[in-house]
Amino acid sequence: VDEFDLIHRYFDRDTGDADVVVGVGDDGAVLCPAAGRHLVSVVDTSVENVHFPESLPAADIGFRSVAVNLSDLAAMGSRPRWMLLALTLPKVDADWLSEFSEGLYAAADEHRVALAGGDTTHGGTLVVSVHMIGDVDPQMAMRRDAAMPGDEVWLTGSTGDAAAGLRLFQEGSVAGDAAAFLVGRFRRPRARVAIGQKLARFANAAIDVSDGLFADAHKLAQSSSVALSLHLERIPLSPALCKLFADDAEVLSLTGGDDYELLFTAPADSAAEIQRIADAEAVPATRIGQVSTGIGATCYRDGNPVSFDDPGYRHFHE
Amino acid sequence: VDEFDLIHRYFDRDTGDADVVVGVGDDGAVLCPAAGRHLVSVVDTSVENVHFPESLPAADIGFRSVAVNLSDLAAMGSRPRWMLLALTLPKVDADWLSEFSEGLYAAADEHRVALAGGDTTHGGTLVVSVHMIGDVDPQMAMRRDAAMPGDEVWLTGSTGDAAAGLRLFQEGSVAGDAAAFLVGRFRRPRARVAIGQKLARFANAAIDVSDGLFADAHKLAQSSSVALSLHLERIPLSPALCKLFADDAEVLSLTGGDDYELLFTAPADSAAEIQRIADAEAVPATRIGQVSTGIGATCYRDGNPVSFDDPGYRHFHE
Repeated sequence: VDEFDLIHRYFDRDTGDADVVVGVGDDGAVLCPAAGRHLVSVVDTSVENVHFPESLPAADIGFRSVAVNLSDLAAMGSRPRWMLLALTLPKVDADWLSEFSEGLYAAADEHRVALAGGDTTHGGTLVVSVHMIGDVDPQMAMRRDAAMPGDEVWLTGSTGDAAAGLRLFQEGSVAGDAAAFLVGRFRRPRARVAIGQKLARFANAAIDVSDGLFADAHKLAQSSSVALSLHLERIPLSPALCKLFADDAEVLSLTGGDDYELLFTAPADSAAEIQRIADAEAVPATRIGQVSTGIGATCYRDGNPVSFDDPGYRHFHE
Repeated sequence: VDEFDLIHRYFDRDTGDADVVVGVGDDGAVLCPAAGRHLVSVVDTSVENVHFPESLPAADIGFRSVAVNLSDLAAMGSRPRWMLLALTLPKVDADWLSEFSEGLYAAADEHRVALAGGDTTHGGTLVVSVHMIGDVDPQMAMRRDAAMPGDEVWLTGSTGDAAAGLRLFQEGSVAGDAAAFLVGRFRRPRARVAIGQKLARFANAAIDVSDGLFADAHKLAQSSSVALSLHLERIPLSPALCKLFADDAEVLSLTGGDDYELLFTAPADSAAEIQRIADAEAVPATRIGQVSTGIGATCYRDGNPVSFDDPGYRHFHE
């Protein structure tokens, strides 16, 4: 019996999805797309000791690998549908695979994303690439290049928590509610899938915050050829971050990665609708800046520009 | 400037495809699928020193990484449309990336497959995952599990060439037309894309031959819960393989991997149509066996079963 055939069995479940015409176990998945919608296709790779420490439990690796792709779809305003898994393994360990698949399915099931296929290979480094396919109403996708001068800049949730949580996890300082919250933000990121789809009606542009708030704000500004201001006093900080990282909270919120929040821009006259959506979804949404003519992101404190030359988050060990 | 932003520039070309609504550079690709067709989604990963030797030129690595996915789509009878690239790199080398992208585009352009997005990460081993999306008429996809007793077993082209070519490449024995042919079969596999789409009207089941003819025949037989006979005297051998590997030609044809030919089954009364398609596409197609009730693949020589207990091709260095 082929070792890799055994592996496939961990990922060969009934999808319960009538639109998966052919699933795991063939050369390809056959999928029935919804009529009249556009597809959104994303891929996000997680590499051991680059995107997560090798000490991270397998279930968390599985969960995160799916969540980061959900987050990409959320940032496009897309409904997630299906995923394929490309898994490169240094060795085959049944316990590890069992836990990994459990975490993977936990993240996928929450959003009814069916695993429709994949490829498992041997390789020196653990590499998890998930390819996810969603759909969206035509003209509704939130693009990175569509921010308009006059837009307000919004952020869901808070940033800096995951980077702080990773630090605590690596130090083994995981006791207490505040630490548990922060570590959980790294281990089990919650992609903003539901609110992303609702925001698509109102937002002009969006990006998911994976590389740090400032770096991603800068990317959005560059893609849209606009200037984006971030008002430091408005950037929301979680109580746990303030409690355990009082001195570094602001820097972490601007430069910490792996938050998987949504940074988006919308016309000012959509503010009430956006706030209503955020309330209905029980997701905090905060106006943290404005879009104007110009280029790139700038931080302001009390109305004055602050020199902030961060190279952007480059993953934790680089 | 971000090193990985630079990398993306190698892969950020005008796609010339009006159905790519949003391409490289956003959180996800937005794609407009053809109405009334099913999607076919595949992923295939190529790992350095597992699927190809590290001495392989970067352009060939790029070409092969696309070709193996085209082959998966061909085996489903699907028209290829778009792809996403997940690239894990040990280091960033501009020359390597330039050559890699050239080979990647050479394979993709031939079939008008647009690169619509991707993700580039740092990692200890070179890992290339390509996610390709195609489409197919509903009910037309060639499945692995649909072979029927009474079907004839067909093979496009010849097998064993790529494994022989890899051996020659690693020995540095690449002089002469026969060697060039075999080495080319490894370096630049030609996926059977056009004939695959035409065969879908007639074939019941198909698989692409990537792990060795016998191993893949066995997989098809198991998926379909049928017995599949392979008549050794009918298995086509290329003149180059016979010339340079006279003693090993048959074993290589049965167990060598990386051929990317199509193994398919079809009712006997489709034989004339299939032969006409093969002639029109200038692709050899040979009837090499039958499907009957039972389970698994068996080889026959002059009508007698031959014990053949091959574990299947496990990539070249494992």
